[in-house]
Amino acid sequence: MTETPNKRVKTDDAPKYELIYWPGIPGRAEFIRLLFEEAGVAYLDTAKKESEAVSRVTALTAAENKGDKNNAPALACPALKHGDVMLFQTPNILLYLAPKLGLAPAAGNAMYQLNQIVLTILDFLSNEVHDTHHPMGPSATYEDQKPEAKKRAESFKTDRLPKFLAYIQRVLDGEASGEGPWLHGGNFTYADLVLFQGIHGTEFAFPNTMKKMRDSGKYDGVFNLVRAVGDRPNIKEYLTSDRRASYSTGIWRHYPELDEE
Amino acid sequence: MTETPNKRVKTDDAPKYELIYWPGIPGRAEFIRLLFEEAGVAYLDTAKKESEAVSRVTALTAAENKGDKNNAPALACPALKHGDVMLFQTPNILLYLAPKLGLAPAAGNAMYQLNQIVLTILDFLSNEVHDTHHPMGPSATYEDQKPEAKKRAESFKTDRLPKFLAYIQRVLDGEASGEGPWLHGGNFTYADLVLFQGIHGTEFAFPNTMKKMRDSGKYDGVFNLVRAVGDRPNIKEYLTSDRRASYSTGIWRHYPELDEE
Repeated sequence: MTETPNKRVKTDDAPKYELIYWPGIPGRAEFIRLLFEEAGVAYLDTAKKESEAVSRVTALTAAENKGDKNNAPALACPALKHGDVMLFQTPNILLYLAPKLGLAPAAGNAMYQLNQIVLTILDFLSNEVHDTHHPMGPSATYEDQKPEAKKRAESFKTDRLPKFLAYIQRVLDGEASGEGPWLHGGNFTYADLVLFQGIHGTEFAFPNTMKKMRDSGKYDGVFNLVRAVGDRPNIKEYLTSDRRASYSTGIWRHYPELDEE
Repeated sequence: MTETPNKRVKTDDAPKYELIYWPGIPGRAEFIRLLFEEAGVAYLDTAKKESEAVSRVTALTAAENKGDKNNAPALACPALKHGDVMLFQTPNILLYLAPKLGLAPAAGNAMYQLNQIVLTILDFLSNEVHDTHHPMGPSATYEDQKPEAKKRAESFKTDRLPKFLAYIQRVLDGEASGEGPWLHGGNFTYADLVLFQGIHGTEFAFPNTMKKMRDSGKYDGVFNLVRAVGDRPNIKEYLTSDRRASYSTGIWRHYPELDEE
């Protein structure tokens, strides 16, 4: 590999990790990028290699691709290549990477405690936010499902989002979250990064709704955590770098007609 | 605990595992039950304790419950109690249990290979099947979203379901699935049980659509695997026992108007 790794970390070696994803959007890959960025570990981000970005994704998910000796084929991206290992499914990649990058304990039950919170964040702030603009499924465009999107977004804003925020606040109020702003055991972990990205994307998609949630004062722990993650030096630097893609027509989309007025 | 464990395994001890879930439906807990049943390991199934079944669920997910020293509170059921450990999120509980019950390797990368397949099965055959009758979200009843359900079910039948079946067939055709009918490494694992339940439930919900898929001959590996799981002695015994709940108004619902004619 002759490409320059798109990280500031100086190394003579090619990056050990390769992240394969669609170009032009943060998307689900963003949860994974934040782990590399926080840890300061080099990674090759195929989404940034304009000429091959799309072909890397389509080759991986093509009907002809049946994986190899060790690895099942991927159904969808993001995918992670690490030596002989090729993995897909965002929460699975996060589970694999977090202990290797020092962002989760490598043994014991904490991994399950973190994984269940991460799955819940992804359910609400990635999958369900996506469903607000594609409630009829990914086969049709937003323009083909605008009335249904309006109805689904209503349910998200009034029911699902407050339910989720109240739950995360409950986690933070609980003893298992430990001291300080973080979700589990008093330690900063990848679950905090996942929550940060989920809230950040949802604030882009539903700015007025999220302002109302923030101003309610009911979820101060949640928004404090998000601020604390955004203040971490590596994350702060990343967010203003050209490695961070702008939101566009991915998971987190801003359609003013779906937000509160 | 004085209750009789609802398993045929003879033991003087109370079961070590407690599964907490809504009564009256197989639901998401069924993926977990199948692991216990296959392994022949006793478990206390709170859904079967009529007088307390609902209150166990509601107490667990109540706003006042903030978990304990080691465990975050649960957002939703199923939940698993095992000694001091309390976990939720179906794929997370499966990940925790499978190696303990001899249904997944306890170390190495196979756990990630299995977890990604399990997450994908749950995405399509649990979450998306649920979305076919509740595309507007869980806040409203099916009766309040019948036109939208019809549209979403159409996309599921013509696009999502064939995509999923073709993917699993691709996994089975790939080298990493190994010899024999199973999904990974030539060994029977919990991923095979999860696929069995997902297909079984989807056959209840969409019998005509699934017959068409089966008769197409394109996914013979998938349906062979399901048959092989159903022929395993412990699974066979379980399916005809009174421990197996009937499908009803849970995830897998049969609305003839959503199926093929």
